[in-house]
Amino acid sequence: MTFFPFDPETFRWEGVSQQAYKDDPGAARGMAWRGISRHTLVRGAFEVRYFEIAPGGFSSLEKHAHEHAVVCVRGRGTALVGSAVHELRPFALVRSGPWAAHRWVNVGDEPFGFLCTVEAQRDRPAPLDDAEWEALLADPLTAPFAH
Amino acid sequence: MTFFPFDPETFRWEGVSQQAYKDDPGAARGMAWRGISRHTLVRGAFEVRYFEIAPGGFSSLEKHAHEHAVVCVRGRGTALVGSAVHELRPFALVRSGPWAAHRWVNVGDEPFGFLCTVEAQRDRPAPLDDAEWEALLADPLTAPFAH
Repeated sequence: MTFFPFDPETFRWEGVSQQAYKDDPGAARGMAWRGISRHTLVRGAFEVRYFEIAPGGFSSLEKHAHEHAVVCVRGRGTALVGSAVHELRPFALVRSGPWAAHRWVNVGDEPFGFLCTVEAQRDRPAPLDDAEWEALLADPLTAPFAH
Repeated sequence: MTFFPFDPETFRWEGVSQQAYKDDPGAARGMAWRGISRHTLVRGAFEVRYFEIAPGGFSSLEKHAHEHAVVCVRGRGTALVGSAVHELRPFALVRSGPWAAHRWVNVGDEPFGFLCTVEAQRDRPAPLDDAEWEALLADPLTAPFAH
């Protein structure tokens, strides 16, 4: 298939099915997540995914070697990337580079959605080590992301 | 840099500069283009570009081995992909696969913009051969794209 129409009412693509965000609930420290769906739009040499986080939801706090290219398309969120926190509104762009700790959080009353592109061949996410965790807690700006 | 705020008034990203769509005007049959700007949002193992086509504008009619993953984000356009024509509105998704002839056309009164992801290592676009050109002209649906 080459064409996937978009329905603005449901904010979904015809022919693209919804999946769980991850296979496991994330037992390691910080790896828990809440209220996220994954929609794989394209799978080839790279993957383009649409993630949608419900109000009150958040992604895993994690790191990995591969890069994320994120473009917000719906709602309001905040992003922790490394030691920085960014406010995301549609079409804000965030790159989370190699081994930068990152977590996406819905801070609004409506779904928070973003496109996220990655290499198809990539490493698995890992939890933060003790030093990284303590550094997040030591900064009032980033402490709320360490849970 | 990891964060590129977006200005909805100008539909531009802070820290992302505008470039020419292509280096050359496209002398080969069908390779001409009009009214397009290119904004490279991410360059790594893959590239995420934002292309914007002014009213009356269009991209080159071309083919190549690498795939395009296109998500419309602004305005109204039509896409020729192979022998099919698709109407694009924000967030419609189009994949143009290996060697599919493709051209993007603004059919509205405002700018038509889309995100386009490609592999960083990719082949150069090529014009259509005679048989492909004749096939487009033979179908009233696709003939308007052969110019």
